[in-house]
Amino acid sequence: MARSLGRICKGFQCLGSLSSIQTQLRQPSTSVSVRGTTFVRTMVALPSLFSSKPRDFSLPNSSWGSEMMRLYEHYNSQCEVETEGGEKQEGPWRRLPSYNRLLKYATGGVYLSKIIQSKARLFTRNIRDPGAAFEYVLFVNSEEQKCACVFQAGHLLEGPPGHVHGGAIATMIDTVTGTHATILSGPVMTANLNINYRSPIPLGSTVLLESFLDKKEGRKTFISCKVTSSNGSKLHTETTALFLSINFSHLLLGE
Amino acid sequence: MARSLGRICKGFQCLGSLSSIQTQLRQPSTSVSVRGTTFVRTMVALPSLFSSKPRDFSLPNSSWGSEMMRLYEHYNSQCEVETEGGEKQEGPWRRLPSYNRLLKYATGGVYLSKIIQSKARLFTRNIRDPGAAFEYVLFVNSEEQKCACVFQAGHLLEGPPGHVHGGAIATMIDTVTGTHATILSGPVMTANLNINYRSPIPLGSTVLLESFLDKKEGRKTFISCKVTSSNGSKLHTETTALFLSINFSHLLLGE
Repeated sequence: MARSLGRICKGFQCLGSLSSIQTQLRQPSTSVSVRGTTFVRTMVALPSLFSSKPRDFSLPNSSWGSEMMRLYEHYNSQCEVETEGGEKQEGPWRRLPSYNRLLKYATGGVYLSKIIQSKARLFTRNIRDPGAAFEYVLFVNSEEQKCACVFQAGHLLEGPPGHVHGGAIATMIDTVTGTHATILSGPVMTANLNINYRSPIPLGSTVLLESFLDKKEGRKTFISCKVTSSNGSKLHTETTALFLSINFSHLLLGE
Repeated sequence: MARSLGRICKGFQCLGSLSSIQTQLRQPSTSVSVRGTTFVRTMVALPSLFSSKPRDFSLPNSSWGSEMMRLYEHYNSQCEVETEGGEKQEGPWRRLPSYNRLLKYATGGVYLSKIIQSKARLFTRNIRDPGAAFEYVLFVNSEEQKCACVFQAGHLLEGPPGHVHGGAIATMIDTVTGTHATILSGPVMTANLNINYRSPIPLGSTVLLESFLDKKEGRKTFISCKVTSSNGSKLHTETTALFLSINFSHLLLGE
């Protein structure tokens, strides 16, 4: 386990010291979480490495339907609010940018060939056709310690005929809860996902994922998450998730 | 919940009676399970509806690496065995075919537009580029009530740098345990997935998923699943899964 984590950390080590990465990871706007393990969004943290500006998938595109746009506007309008004096200031919510890969120049796992490494893409952002797969945007409310994600499920995510695959739902839950845990606790790994499926999600529909901090105990961060229809009337899934903070000194000692 | 399940069942109803579908679902070679809900592989069950033979993704292609091929051959060689008299007969294992969509002519969910419906693809088979995403083949051993799946994770499944996304792992677990539950109990829906992540999976590597029947209680089928490295030396995840048999009469009464 320690060795596996060590391999994952190589990507960071080639980019800078662990301490600076840990600092970056505590800044939500420059970090992401996937597979529960959370990593710095390097394209944000190190923009000078890139010749052109990467696409931010969290911004609206023509494939977004009316429900997706309505919920996006609902949260986005609360990212910046106007004071009584007419001045603009930060609101309670903040939109998190999203890209299609993590560490472009990381060495990756020990089994990762150079060819695979050069082509690797973030699972949730690997389809080029807008609207075909995962269309989603994540917002964080630091004061209330919660996250909200608006998710429109494309036609390439089919499981049961006309409905979203349970694995695609689990993918979004892992993404949202992992991001939330990162924001709260710094670098983490998913230790457990316990998902109760209550009702299937129609393909092409927009749903809302909301995550909440349950508690923190030492290295453990407990997050719960529910997926509902866009108007909140139907419960699709309920989840508890456990994340473990990555203990770098523990890793370095190889224990 | 009942109404949602009813929508999903429409796809079957337009193709034939429920009783014939249930019969087909008890024949593993013609059934699949996705999102835990299990459906007949219509392209197998009703070949006359299709003008050309669909691609069976469970057969080897040029992207399969040596470990993928080794494990494939290991199980495939046990699908047909030779008797002492030199005759060939069915072995303990059976390979399950796999396609990129379920019910081509199903009506799908109520929110499903005709455009989405015509383009819908099974989540795990939606990438055309061989080796880029989910390469897997499922085998079933009916006598020992277990399933084995050989899975090679492509470069489009990235989560942590150089490693597989937790959602992609959950997707494969849902697929394998759901298929297994179907074979054992007929049409089912996933009610719960409880996944413990032990160590990350390097991108590009081949792993083995094995599922086992824990118990059956009324409508409930309990399956456990472990994901290990291809040689079995490393444990990646441990999962318990609960599936509920779909009660058609219950659905029809709208209760």
